[in-house]
Amino acid sequence: MTALLTDLYQLTMLQAYLEQGMDDSATFELFVRKLPPERNFLVAAGLEQALEFLQSLAFAEDDIAWLESQGGFSQRLLDHLKTFRFTGDVHAMPEGTVCFADEPIVRVTAPLPQAQFVESRLLNIVHLQTLIASKAARVVLAAPDKRLVDFGMRRAHGAEAALAAARAAYIAGVGGTATVEAARRFGIPAVGTMAHSFVQAFASEGRAFTAFARAWPNRPTLLIDTYDTEAAVAQVVALAPQWAREGITLGGVRLDSGDLAQHAKAVRALLDAGGLPSVRIVASGNLDEHRVAQLVAAGAPIDGFGVGTAMDTSSDVPALDAVYKLQSYAGVARRKRSQGKATWPGIKQVCRTLGADGRLHHDRVQLEPEPCAGRPLLEPVLRAGRLVAPLPTLDQIRAHCAAQLQCLPDALRSLAPAAPPFSPEISDALRALAHEVDAATRQ
Amino acid sequence: MTALLTDLYQLTMLQAYLEQGMDDSATFELFVRKLPPERNFLVAAGLEQALEFLQSLAFAEDDIAWLESQGGFSQRLLDHLKTFRFTGDVHAMPEGTVCFADEPIVRVTAPLPQAQFVESRLLNIVHLQTLIASKAARVVLAAPDKRLVDFGMRRAHGAEAALAAARAAYIAGVGGTATVEAARRFGIPAVGTMAHSFVQAFASEGRAFTAFARAWPNRPTLLIDTYDTEAAVAQVVALAPQWAREGITLGGVRLDSGDLAQHAKAVRALLDAGGLPSVRIVASGNLDEHRVAQLVAAGAPIDGFGVGTAMDTSSDVPALDAVYKLQSYAGVARRKRSQGKATWPGIKQVCRTLGADGRLHHDRVQLEPEPCAGRPLLEPVLRAGRLVAPLPTLDQIRAHCAAQLQCLPDALRSLAPAAPPFSPEISDALRALAHEVDAATRQ
Repeated sequence: MTALLTDLYQLTMLQAYLEQGMDDSATFELFVRKLPPERNFLVAAGLEQALEFLQSLAFAEDDIAWLESQGGFSQRLLDHLKTFRFTGDVHAMPEGTVCFADEPIVRVTAPLPQAQFVESRLLNIVHLQTLIASKAARVVLAAPDKRLVDFGMRRAHGAEAALAAARAAYIAGVGGTATVEAARRFGIPAVGTMAHSFVQAFASEGRAFTAFARAWPNRPTLLIDTYDTEAAVAQVVALAPQWAREGITLGGVRLDSGDLAQHAKAVRALLDAGGLPSVRIVASGNLDEHRVAQLVAAGAPIDGFGVGTAMDTSSDVPALDAVYKLQSYAGVARRKRSQGKATWPGIKQVCRTLGADGRLHHDRVQLEPEPCAGRPLLEPVLRAGRLVAPLPTLDQIRAHCAAQLQCLPDALRSLAPAAPPFSPEISDALRALAHEVDAATRQ
Repeated sequence: MTALLTDLYQLTMLQAYLEQGMDDSATFELFVRKLPPERNFLVAAGLEQALEFLQSLAFAEDDIAWLESQGGFSQRLLDHLKTFRFTGDVHAMPEGTVCFADEPIVRVTAPLPQAQFVESRLLNIVHLQTLIASKAARVVLAAPDKRLVDFGMRRAHGAEAALAAARAAYIAGVGGTATVEAARRFGIPAVGTMAHSFVQAFASEGRAFTAFARAWPNRPTLLIDTYDTEAAVAQVVALAPQWAREGITLGGVRLDSGDLAQHAKAVRALLDAGGLPSVRIVASGNLDEHRVAQLVAAGAPIDGFGVGTAMDTSSDVPALDAVYKLQSYAGVARRKRSQGKATWPGIKQVCRTLGADGRLHHDRVQLEPEPCAGRPLLEPVLRAGRLVAPLPTLDQIRAHCAAQLQCLPDALRSLAPAAPPFSPEISDALRALAHEVDAATRQ
């Protein structure tokens, strides 16, 4: 993606920084200002793609030519862009880490022009995957023993959103995706059944089922709600012996409409009575964590869920209050005091301590040099623009996330808002620094 | 984007269609099943990108090699993909057209394997821009005489979402975007100011303002809420004479926090008293159509609004119930009857009639051959996979959309839900066909 995928003000500011010779070291932190009531926690994600962005950042000749054609950009800026690269340091929470409001997820230290410029796209990448992983974790917690699949590509917000959503959902514990390119790019298991149009295109539902089973003899899943769900199951039961003689082992049936709990019970009974107890039932259709939890609580005999739009758009909270703020420049801590949007100044770390039960007990946002009795969450990932160590694999990230979810107290694992919400302590030294900075910048 | 950006079931179905020799002509329609109560109308958008997708659709060698490596895909399918292209016909509503539930926005007629396969990405493209254009139109209606700018890239869902949102918002009447690449790609006016970090990086706010004004002497906009809004304006007033001597004409100031109406009134008074009556006030910060409407109603002296996250994620309705359904195959009308998700069968057209006042009066969804006393909304755009005529420019689309919004009755232009909501008439012939199809497919 071109370096011009940015906000214009990154370039206007860059021009002014260059004129002023302001290229001292700056530290920015990416964090979420406030958790919405619908989220008891967040799951940090998107770091791998963010680091790819930082490592490959460069302006192409035609980018610079286009800027020149617009007028207003100085020759000094245009020349500067020709060799512009990201050469800074990055600390970050490992992907899959549970986090909360005010906790830096990514911390960037670089010459001011670089550290500032990367803001727009860095937020664009980390916000999206953190948003979706945080939503998907709720779906996973709602159905701990069920197979979950991402069905959301069609209504995800574009190509990158669909791919990022599949990845973020997999990190959070969803088991597969219907999106083929996500399967290829990230190694996520691909899952697919059939659409209603397939059934409709045939002269009868039975012929559609047989044609599909012959094309995919290894445990196919058939969509049974195109016309009449129970009638469709009766056909499946009637046809299964013939399929078995052809070497076809039916894998599952999918429900996509109506009262899913009621249909699942009826379908389970029909399948069992028809000698098909091993055929699994998959449900889909406008599912989110709440509907999944209801179906699980109702004891619906559903083995897996396809979750789409609600998860891939994080539909109840389609954006987090994620920001990227200057915390230090030229060795001096900085802070904005805008009404309702003040930030904590200085270069920070998050110190997490677990309780005796192994569960998350306490987070403290503190200044980097303060001692941490628990585990510091921000780890070095880039030094002078290069990876400090190889990144974890997606399956390692997923295992880390599973362990993190395991460590959550029950109140935070619940779909209902935790009362009180979990928020990190702000260290005394940090509060003192904020007062100092305010005093220094009063006019 | 690779052809593998699709749902796996498109490939599993394709394999079965090939085995069955099912390649007769199929017609699918893309439409929204139901309008959410937060939307009185939709604005169709994204067609240009959808047609680019259809015209460039092809599997690369490495796409096919990867599928082969996964197992299960037949040699017949893999061979078929090597020359797979979209060679069908497409009818569509011109971009910028106002539309409603059950009205086909795009209609695809092609051999079944092609018409089926394009579903996932076609929805992914058209859904996103229609979603954002529909949201942005509400922002435009809320502030008819104000300058509106898209500020949403950072929290849009990825790169494609950010670019598509800038385009869709521009179609709906938003006047510019902060996203540089959207400006380049689509020719949308680019707008940029400065971030809080810019002000923070300087030893004082006044120095930051002067540095920025010198870098951008042609009507710069200064961000004035980093520390204390009114104090910042006092500095602007004090510094303006010096800037004027240097040939700098201040363009505007931006408010981004606190009570925007109150700050705008105070700032306006200070600017006017300070001899700066032509400096404009721009407001931003978690704005949506409702907050914009409140500020306008309160008579806040704000000249322009930067609207970001709420618009670019369509935050109150981050997804529409957009679907793509088989309506006819091999000359026979088709229909799904799934509970709560039944569709109208057959190849359809939307006939729109205006009232004597020139306002939208009546829409009728009818079979293609039925006569239309008004204007048929679906027009041919692709024939045998090629453009029927050059597509309109973005500014032509924008002008069409403005005219469409002008034709809306006041109840639909309102931000409040219209009672009753507008829905198209379903023609008698269409209802009769639905009964016929049902009778033919009863089992």
